[in-house]
Amino acid sequence: MSRFVIIVAGGTGTRMRTNTAKQFLMIEGLPILWRTLRRFGEAVPDAPITLVLHESLFDEFRILESEHGPSGATHLIKGGAERFHSVLAGLTSLPDEGLVAIHDAVRPFPSIKLIRTAFDTAATHGSAIPTIPLKDSIRKISYSKDSDSVSDSVSVNRSDFLSVQTPQCFDLSLLKPAFASPYSPTFTDDASVFEASGHPITLCQGDPVNIKLTTPEDLIIARALFGE
Amino acid sequence: MSRFVIIVAGGTGTRMRTNTAKQFLMIEGLPILWRTLRRFGEAVPDAPITLVLHESLFDEFRILESEHGPSGATHLIKGGAERFHSVLAGLTSLPDEGLVAIHDAVRPFPSIKLIRTAFDTAATHGSAIPTIPLKDSIRKISYSKDSDSVSDSVSVNRSDFLSVQTPQCFDLSLLKPAFASPYSPTFTDDASVFEASGHPITLCQGDPVNIKLTTPEDLIIARALFGE
Repeated sequence: MSRFVIIVAGGTGTRMRTNTAKQFLMIEGLPILWRTLRRFGEAVPDAPITLVLHESLFDEFRILESEHGPSGATHLIKGGAERFHSVLAGLTSLPDEGLVAIHDAVRPFPSIKLIRTAFDTAATHGSAIPTIPLKDSIRKISYSKDSDSVSDSVSVNRSDFLSVQTPQCFDLSLLKPAFASPYSPTFTDDASVFEASGHPITLCQGDPVNIKLTTPEDLIIARALFGE
Repeated sequence: MSRFVIIVAGGTGTRMRTNTAKQFLMIEGLPILWRTLRRFGEAVPDAPITLVLHESLFDEFRILESEHGPSGATHLIKGGAERFHSVLAGLTSLPDEGLVAIHDAVRPFPSIKLIRTAFDTAATHGSAIPTIPLKDSIRKISYSKDSDSVSDSVSVNRSDFLSVQTPQCFDLSLLKPAFASPYSPTFTDDASVFEASGHPITLCQGDPVNIKLTTPEDLIIARALFGE
Protein backbone atom coordinates (compact mmCIF):
# COMPACT_ATOMS: atom_id res chain seq x y z
CA MET A 1 0.00 0.00 0.00
CA SER A 2 1.14 3.56 -0.66
CA ARG A 3 2.40 5.38 2.40
CA PHE A 4 1.88 9.03 3.30
CA VAL A 5 2.95 11.29 6.15
CA ILE A 6 1.13 14.28 7.66
CA ILE A 7 3.15 16.50 9.99
CA VAL A 8 0.97 18.72 12.17
CA ALA A 9 2.54 22.01 13.27
CA GLY A 10 -0.37 23.91 14.73
CA GLY A 11 1.35 25.96 17.42
CA THR A 12 2.52 29.54 17.21
CA GLY A 13 4.76 29.66 20.29
CA THR A 14 2.61 30.62 23.28
CA ARG A 15 3.51 27.79 25.64
CA MET A 16 7.20 27.97 24.73
CA ARG A 17 7.17 31.65 25.83
CA THR A 18 9.17 32.68 22.75
CA ASN A 19 8.45 34.77 19.70
CA THR A 20 9.50 31.87 17.53
CA ALA A 21 6.98 29.06 16.94
CA LYS A 22 8.39 26.06 18.76
CA GLN A 23 8.72 23.92 15.64
CA PHE A 24 11.13 26.56 14.31
CA LEU A 25 13.41 26.65 17.38
CA MET A 26 16.91 25.33 16.74
CA ILE A 27 18.55 22.11 17.85
CA GLU A 28 22.23 22.00 16.95
CA GLY A 29 21.95 24.35 14.00
CA LEU A 30 18.73 23.04 12.44
CA PRO A 31 15.07 23.91 13.19
CA ILE A 32 13.19 21.23 15.15
CA LEU A 33 10.80 20.77 12.22
CA TRP A 34 13.69 19.95 9.88
CA ARG A 35 14.92 17.30 12.34
CA THR A 36 11.43 15.78 12.55
CA LEU A 37 11.02 15.64 8.76
CA ARG A 38 14.48 14.14 8.33
CA ARG A 39 13.49 11.13 10.45
CA PHE A 40 10.54 10.37 8.17
CA GLY A 41 12.68 10.92 5.08
CA GLU A 42 15.04 8.21 6.38
CA ALA A 43 12.38 5.80 7.60
CA VAL A 44 9.96 5.94 4.63
CA PRO A 45 11.76 7.68 1.73
CA ASP A 46 8.92 6.78 -0.68
CA ALA A 47 6.26 8.58 1.36
CA PRO A 48 5.20 12.11 0.39
CA ILE A 49 5.11 14.40 3.43
CA THR A 50 2.28 16.90 3.87
CA LEU A 51 3.16 19.68 6.30
CA VAL A 52 0.18 21.40 7.92
CA LEU A 53 1.25 24.79 9.23
CA HIS A 54 -0.46 27.86 10.63
CA GLU A 55 -0.84 30.30 7.73
CA SER A 56 0.83 33.14 9.68
CA LEU A 57 4.06 31.10 9.63
CA PHE A 58 4.29 30.44 5.88
CA ASP A 59 6.68 33.38 5.30
CA GLU A 60 8.95 32.37 8.17
CA PHE A 61 8.94 28.78 6.89
CA ARG A 62 10.10 29.94 3.44
CA ILE A 63 12.86 32.09 4.96
CA LEU A 64 14.06 29.06 6.95
CA GLU A 65 14.02 26.96 3.75
CA SER A 66 16.24 29.55 2.09
CA GLU A 67 18.63 29.41 5.07
CA HIS A 68 18.65 25.68 5.85
CA GLY A 69 17.66 24.06 2.56
CA PRO A 70 14.49 22.09 1.79
CA SER A 71 12.68 20.83 4.89
CA GLY A 72 11.70 17.59 3.17
CA ALA A 73 7.99 18.46 3.09
CA THR A 74 6.47 17.77 -0.33
CA HIS A 75 3.22 19.67 0.29
CA LEU A 76 2.43 22.69 2.44
CA ILE A 77 -1.15 23.07 3.70
CA LYS A 78 -2.84 25.75 5.80
CA GLY A 79 -3.76 24.59 9.35
CA GLY A 80 -7.14 24.94 11.06
CA ALA A 81 -8.45 26.08 14.45
CA GLU A 82 -7.93 22.75 16.26
CA ARG A 83 -5.72 19.78 15.59
CA PHE A 84 -8.77 17.99 14.17
CA HIS A 85 -9.20 20.66 11.50
CA SER A 86 -5.49 20.69 10.65
CA VAL A 87 -5.39 16.92 10.21
CA LEU A 88 -8.60 17.06 8.17
CA ALA A 89 -6.98 19.65 5.88
CA GLY A 90 -3.98 17.37 5.45
CA LEU A 91 -6.16 14.32 4.75
CA THR A 92 -8.14 16.16 2.09
CA SER A 93 -4.94 16.35 0.03
CA LEU A 94 -4.42 12.56 0.15
CA PRO A 95 -5.97 9.70 -1.87
CA ASP A 96 -8.69 7.49 -0.38
CA GLU A 97 -6.50 4.38 -0.19
CA GLY A 98 -3.16 3.72 1.48
CA LEU A 99 -1.61 4.28 4.88
CA VAL A 100 -0.95 7.57 6.64
CA ALA A 101 1.28 8.42 9.60
CA ILE A 102 0.17 11.55 11.46
CA HIS A 103 2.91 13.07 13.57
CA ASP A 104 3.56 16.13 15.78
CA ALA A 105 6.06 18.58 14.28
CA VAL A 106 7.56 19.16 17.76
CA ARG A 107 8.37 15.49 18.36
CA PRO A 108 11.75 15.31 16.61
CA PHE A 109 13.03 11.96 17.91
CA PRO A 110 10.80 9.15 16.60
CA SER A 111 13.16 6.28 15.85
CA ILE A 112 13.33 4.84 12.33
CA LYS A 113 12.20 1.54 13.84
CA LEU A 114 9.20 3.15 15.55
CA ILE A 115 8.03 4.81 12.32
CA ARG A 116 8.34 1.57 10.32
CA THR A 117 6.69 -0.54 13.05
CA ALA A 118 3.75 1.87 13.13
CA PHE A 119 3.27 1.60 9.34
CA ASP A 120 3.62 -2.21 9.39
CA THR A 121 1.15 -2.58 12.26
CA ALA A 122 -1.41 -0.32 10.57
CA ALA A 123 -1.01 -2.28 7.31
CA THR A 124 -2.11 -5.43 9.14
CA HIS A 125 -4.58 -4.07 11.70
CA GLY A 126 -5.88 -0.77 10.29
CA SER A 127 -4.31 1.40 12.99
CA ALA A 128 -1.17 1.70 15.13
CA ILE A 129 -0.84 3.95 18.19
CA PRO A 130 2.57 4.05 19.93
CA THR A 131 2.25 4.00 23.71
CA ILE A 132 4.53 3.91 26.75
CA PRO A 133 3.81 3.36 30.47
CA LEU A 134 3.19 6.42 32.65
CA LYS A 135 6.15 7.39 34.82
CA ASP A 136 4.27 9.36 37.44
CA SER A 137 1.12 8.61 39.38
CA ILE A 138 -1.97 10.40 38.10
CA ARG A 139 -5.12 11.76 39.73
CA LYS A 140 -8.52 12.20 38.13
CA ILE A 141 -9.87 15.67 38.74
CA SER A 142 -13.29 17.30 38.79
CA TYR A 143 -13.90 20.95 38.05
CA SER A 144 -16.23 23.32 39.91
CA LYS A 145 -19.49 23.86 38.02
CA ASP A 146 -19.10 27.61 37.85
CA SER A 147 -15.35 27.93 37.26
CA ASP A 148 -12.26 26.33 35.79
CA SER A 149 -10.83 25.53 39.22
CA VAL A 150 -10.29 21.95 40.36
CA SER A 151 -12.89 21.06 43.00
CA ASP A 152 -11.88 17.49 43.73
CA SER A 153 -9.36 14.80 42.75
CA VAL A 154 -9.04 11.08 43.26
CA SER A 155 -6.14 8.66 42.93
CA VAL A 156 -6.37 6.24 39.99
CA ASN A 157 -4.26 3.20 39.21
CA ARG A 158 -1.39 4.28 36.97
CA SER A 159 -1.03 0.80 35.46
CA ASP A 160 -4.55 1.10 34.00
CA PHE A 161 -3.32 3.83 31.64
CA LEU A 162 -0.77 4.31 28.86
CA SER A 163 0.77 7.51 27.54
CA VAL A 164 0.12 8.05 23.83
CA GLN A 165 2.68 9.29 21.30
CA THR A 166 2.81 9.89 17.56
CA PRO A 167 3.23 8.85 14.72
CA GLN A 168 -0.29 7.44 14.80
CA CYS A 169 -0.78 5.35 11.65
CA PHE A 170 -4.08 4.50 9.95
CA ASP A 171 -5.60 2.91 6.90
CA LEU A 172 -6.79 5.89 4.85
CA SER A 173 -9.92 4.06 3.66
CA LEU A 174 -11.07 3.97 7.31
CA LEU A 175 -9.60 7.25 8.58
CA LYS A 176 -10.92 9.61 5.92
CA PRO A 177 -14.60 8.70 6.56
CA ALA A 178 -13.91 9.00 10.32
CA PHE A 179 -12.73 12.58 9.83
CA ALA A 180 -15.96 13.37 7.95
CA SER A 181 -17.69 13.44 11.39
CA PRO A 182 -18.40 16.83 12.97
CA TYR A 183 -15.68 18.07 15.34
CA SER A 184 -16.04 17.11 19.03
CA PRO A 185 -13.94 18.44 21.96
CA THR A 186 -13.39 14.80 22.98
CA PHE A 187 -11.10 14.40 19.94
CA THR A 188 -7.84 14.80 21.86
CA ASP A 189 -5.77 12.92 19.29
CA ASP A 190 -6.26 11.22 15.93
CA ALA A 191 -6.93 7.82 17.52
CA SER A 192 -9.93 9.26 19.37
CA VAL A 193 -11.45 10.36 16.03
CA PHE A 194 -10.78 6.93 14.52
CA GLU A 195 -12.36 5.00 17.40
CA ALA A 196 -15.38 7.35 17.56
CA SER A 197 -16.27 5.84 14.16
CA GLY A 198 -16.28 2.37 15.70
CA HIS A 199 -12.88 1.16 14.45
CA PRO A 200 -10.64 -0.83 16.81
CA ILE A 201 -7.37 0.73 17.93
CA THR A 202 -4.18 -1.33 17.80
CA LEU A 203 -1.36 -0.31 20.13
CA CYS A 204 2.35 -0.60 19.36
CA GLN A 205 5.48 0.03 21.38
CA GLY A 206 6.43 3.71 21.79
CA ASP A 207 9.78 5.07 22.91
CA PRO A 208 10.61 7.21 25.99
CA VAL A 209 12.98 9.33 23.86
CA ASN A 210 10.17 10.26 21.45
CA ILE A 211 9.19 13.27 23.57
CA LYS A 212 6.97 16.19 22.62
CA LEU A 213 8.69 19.54 23.07
CA THR A 214 6.24 21.79 24.87
CA THR A 215 8.07 23.91 27.44
CA PRO A 216 11.43 25.76 27.48
CA GLU A 217 12.84 22.96 29.67
CA ASP A 218 11.97 20.46 26.95
CA LEU A 219 14.24 22.32 24.58
CA ILE A 220 17.19 21.90 26.94
CA ILE A 221 16.29 18.22 27.15
CA ALA A 222 16.03 17.93 23.37
CA ARG A 223 19.44 19.49 22.84
CA ALA A 224 20.91 17.04 25.38
CA LEU A 225 19.28 14.03 23.74
CA PHE A 226 20.41 15.14 20.32
CA GLY A 227 23.98 15.66 21.49
CA GLU A 228 24.15 12.18 23.02
CA MET B 1 4.83 22.99 63.55
CA SER B 2 8.01 20.92 63.37
CA ARG B 3 8.95 19.84 59.87
CA PHE B 4 10.43 16.50 58.81
CA VAL B 5 11.57 14.97 55.54
CA ILE B 6 11.50 11.33 54.43
CA ILE B 7 13.49 10.47 51.31
CA VAL B 8 12.46 7.13 49.79
CA ALA B 9 15.18 5.31 47.86
CA GLY B 10 13.69 1.89 47.29
CA GLY B 11 15.24 0.94 43.96
CA THR B 12 18.30 -1.20 43.35
CA GLY B 13 18.93 -0.33 39.68
CA THR B 14 16.90 -2.77 37.54
CA ARG B 15 15.07 -0.29 35.33
CA MET B 16 18.17 1.87 34.86
CA ARG B 17 19.96 -1.22 33.44
CA THR B 18 23.09 -0.48 35.48
CA ASN B 19 24.86 -2.20 38.37
CA THR B 20 24.64 1.01 40.34
CA ALA B 21 21.35 1.82 42.09
CA LYS B 22 19.97 4.84 40.25
CA GLN B 23 20.00 7.12 43.29
CA PHE B 24 23.79 6.61 43.39
CA LEU B 25 24.43 7.50 39.73
CA MET B 26 26.43 10.69 39.24
CA ILE B 27 25.33 14.10 38.00
CA GLU B 28 28.26 16.47 37.57
CA GLY B 29 30.46 14.79 40.17
CA LEU B 30 27.87 14.14 42.88
CA PRO B 31 25.46 11.20 43.36
CA ILE B 32 21.83 11.98 42.50
CA LEU B 33 20.82 11.30 46.11
CA TRP B 34 23.24 13.93 47.36
CA ARG B 35 21.72 16.48 44.94
CA THR B 36 18.21 15.60 46.13
CA LEU B 37 19.13 15.94 49.80
CA ARG B 38 20.91 19.23 49.19
CA ARG B 39 17.67 20.80 47.89
CA PHE B 40 15.86 19.93 51.13
CA GLY B 41 18.80 21.16 53.21
CA GLU B 42 18.47 24.53 51.48
CA ALA B 43 14.67 24.74 51.52
CA VAL B 44 14.02 23.57 55.11
CA PRO B 45 17.35 23.63 57.00
CA ASP B 46 15.58 22.97 60.32
CA ALA B 47 14.00 19.69 59.14
CA PRO B 48 15.67 16.36 60.04
CA ILE B 49 15.92 14.12 56.97
CA THR B 50 15.20 10.39 57.27
CA LEU B 51 16.64 8.39 54.40
CA VAL B 52 14.94 5.05 53.72
CA LEU B 53 17.28 2.81 51.76
CA HIS B 54 17.36 -0.83 50.70
CA GLU B 55 19.53 -2.61 53.28
CA SER B 56 21.75 -4.13 50.56
CA LEU B 57 22.91 -0.60 49.71
CA PHE B 58 23.98 0.53 53.19
CA ASP B 59 27.65 -0.34 52.56
CA GLU B 60 27.74 1.46 49.23
CA PHE B 61 26.05 4.46 50.82
CA ARG B 62 28.75 4.66 53.50
CA ILE B 63 31.52 4.39 50.90
CA LEU B 64 29.91 7.27 48.96
CA GLU B 65 29.75 9.32 52.17
CA SER B 66 33.46 8.78 52.67
CA GLU B 67 34.10 9.92 49.09
CA HIS B 68 31.64 12.82 48.75
CA GLY B 69 31.08 13.94 52.34
CA PRO B 70 27.86 13.73 54.37
CA SER B 71 24.72 13.28 52.27
CA GLY B 72 22.69 15.51 54.56
CA ALA B 73 20.53 12.63 55.83
CA THR B 74 20.18 12.71 59.62
CA HIS B 75 18.73 9.18 59.98
CA LEU B 76 19.22 6.04 57.89
CA ILE B 77 16.39 3.47 57.93
CA LYS B 78 16.03 0.08 56.25
CA GLY B 79 13.46 0.02 53.40
CA GLY B 80 10.62 -2.48 52.94
CA ALA B 81 9.17 -4.59 50.11
CA GLU B 82 6.98 -1.85 48.62
CA ARG B 83 7.06 1.92 48.81
CA PHE B 84 4.26 1.72 51.39
CA HIS B 85 6.44 -0.34 53.71
CA SER B 86 9.46 1.93 53.20
CA VAL B 87 7.43 5.05 54.03
CA LEU B 88 5.89 3.29 57.02
CA ALA B 89 9.38 2.46 58.29
CA GLY B 90 10.36 6.12 57.91
CA LEU B 91 7.21 7.34 59.66
CA THR B 92 7.77 5.04 62.63
CA SER B 93 10.92 7.04 63.41
CA LEU B 94 9.00 10.35 63.55
CA PRO B 95 6.88 11.96 66.28
CA ASP B 96 3.07 11.94 66.09
CA GLU B 97 2.77 15.69 65.50
CA GLY B 98 4.24 17.98 62.87
CA LEU B 99 4.52 18.04 59.10
CA VAL B 100 6.36 15.57 56.86
CA ALA B 101 7.46 15.85 53.23
CA ILE B 102 7.87 12.46 51.53
CA HIS B 103 10.05 12.60 48.44
CA ASP B 104 11.57 10.27 45.81
CA ALA B 105 15.36 9.99 46.05
CA VAL B 106 15.60 9.98 42.25
CA ARG B 107 13.80 13.31 41.82
CA PRO B 108 16.77 15.65 42.29
CA PHE B 109 15.27 18.92 41.00
CA PRO B 110 12.43 19.99 43.32
CA SER B 111 12.71 23.78 43.52
CA ILE B 112 13.18 25.47 46.90
CA LYS B 113 9.88 27.25 46.25
CA LEU B 114 8.06 23.97 45.53
CA ILE B 115 9.31 22.37 48.76
CA ARG B 116 8.30 25.39 50.87
CA THR B 117 4.91 25.74 49.15
CA ALA B 118 4.16 22.08 49.82
CA PHE B 119 4.95 22.48 53.55
CA ASP B 120 2.94 25.72 53.82
CA THR B 121 -0.06 24.20 52.03
CA ALA B 122 0.00 21.11 54.24
CA ALA B 123 0.24 23.29 57.36
CA THR B 124 -3.05 24.94 56.40
CA HIS B 125 -4.92 22.07 54.71
CA GLY B 126 -3.42 18.85 56.12
CA SER B 127 -1.93 17.71 52.80
CA ALA B 128 -0.21 19.06 49.69
CA ILE B 129 0.31 17.09 46.47
CA PRO B 130 2.25 18.80 43.66
CA THR B 131 0.70 18.20 40.26
CA ILE B 132 1.27 19.25 36.65
CA PRO B 133 -0.87 18.81 33.51
CA LEU B 134 -0.26 15.73 31.35
CA LYS B 135 1.73 16.46 28.20
CA ASP B 136 0.62 13.48 26.17
CA SER B 137 -2.82 11.99 25.56
CA ILE B 138 -3.55 8.88 27.60
CA ARG B 139 -5.61 5.74 26.98
CA LYS B 140 -7.28 3.56 29.61
CA ILE B 141 -6.40 -0.08 29.08
CA SER B 142 -7.95 -3.41 30.02
CA TYR B 143 -5.96 -6.60 30.48
CA SER B 144 -6.89 -10.09 29.25
CA LYS B 145 -8.28 -12.23 32.06
CA ASP B 146 -5.72 -14.97 31.61
CA SER B 147 -2.61 -12.92 30.85
CA ASP B 148 -0.81 -9.63 31.36
CA SER B 149 -1.41 -8.55 27.77
CA VAL B 150 -3.55 -5.52 26.95
CA SER B 151 -6.89 -6.64 25.51
CA ASP B 152 -8.51 -3.29 24.91
CA SER B 153 -7.94 0.44 25.27
CA VAL B 154 -10.08 3.54 25.15
CA SER B 155 -9.31 7.23 24.75
CA VAL B 156 -9.88 9.36 27.84
CA ASN B 157 -9.86 13.13 28.20
CA ARG B 158 -6.37 14.23 29.16
CA SER B 159 -7.64 17.40 30.85
CA ASP B 160 -9.51 15.25 33.40
CA PHE B 161 -6.19 14.08 34.85
CA LEU B 162 -3.09 15.53 36.47
CA SER B 163 0.38 14.05 36.81
CA VAL B 164 1.51 13.68 40.42
CA GLN B 165 4.98 14.53 41.75
CA THR B 166 6.72 14.58 45.10
CA PRO B 167 7.37 16.00 47.73
CA GLN B 168 3.94 15.04 49.05
CA CYS B 169 3.44 16.81 52.38
CA PHE B 170 1.12 15.76 55.20
CA ASP B 171 0.11 16.52 58.75
CA LEU B 172 1.72 13.69 60.75
CA SER B 173 -1.23 13.45 63.15
CA LEU B 174 -3.38 12.38 60.16
CA LEU B 175 -0.81 10.48 58.10
CA LYS B 176 0.54 8.14 60.75
CA PRO B 177 -2.89 6.62 61.55
CA ALA B 178 -3.51 6.31 57.76
CA PHE B 179 -0.35 4.22 57.41
CA ALA B 180 -1.59 1.92 60.19
CA SER B 181 -3.99 0.41 57.58
CA PRO B 182 -3.04 -2.92 55.99
CA TYR B 183 -1.14 -2.59 52.69
CA SER B 184 -3.23 -2.48 49.48
CA PRO B 185 -1.93 -2.68 45.87
CA THR B 186 -4.04 0.43 45.14
CA PHE B 187 -1.56 2.47 47.23
CA THR B 188 0.39 3.85 44.26
CA ASP B 189 1.66 6.88 46.15
CA ASP B 190 1.46 8.37 49.64
CA ALA B 191 -1.58 10.48 48.77
CA SER B 192 -3.56 7.33 47.94
CA VAL B 193 -2.87 5.97 51.45
CA PHE B 194 -3.90 9.30 53.01
CA GLU B 195 -7.17 9.54 51.09
CA ALA B 196 -8.04 5.86 51.73
CA SER B 197 -8.43 6.95 55.38
CA GLY B 198 -11.01 9.52 54.33
CA HIS B 199 -8.83 12.65 54.46
CA PRO B 200 -9.18 15.26 51.72
CA ILE B 201 -6.25 15.82 49.36
CA THR B 202 -5.11 19.36 48.59
CA LEU B 203 -3.24 19.92 45.34
CA CYS B 204 -0.45 22.43 44.80
CA GLN B 205 1.51 23.55 41.76
CA GLY B 206 4.23 21.10 40.63
CA ASP B 207 7.10 21.88 38.28
CA PRO B 208 7.92 20.28 34.87
CA VAL B 209 11.63 20.25 35.79
CA ASN B 210 10.96 18.15 38.91
CA ILE B 211 11.31 14.90 36.94
CA LYS B 212 11.74 11.38 38.26
CA LEU B 213 14.83 9.67 36.86
CA THR B 214 13.77 6.21 35.78
CA THR B 215 15.46 5.28 32.50
CA PRO B 216 18.99 5.78 31.08
CA GLU B 217 17.61 8.58 28.88
CA ASP B 218 16.44 10.39 32.00
CA LEU B 219 20.01 10.53 33.20
CA ILE B 220 21.09 12.34 30.04
CA ILE B 221 18.18 14.71 30.57
CA ALA B 222 19.12 15.24 34.22
CA ARG B 223 22.70 16.08 33.37
CA ALA B 224 21.47 18.59 30.77
CA LEU B 225 19.05 20.23 33.19
CA PHE B 226 21.70 20.44 35.87
CA GLY B 227 24.23 21.99 33.50
CA GLU B 228 21.77 24.66 32.38
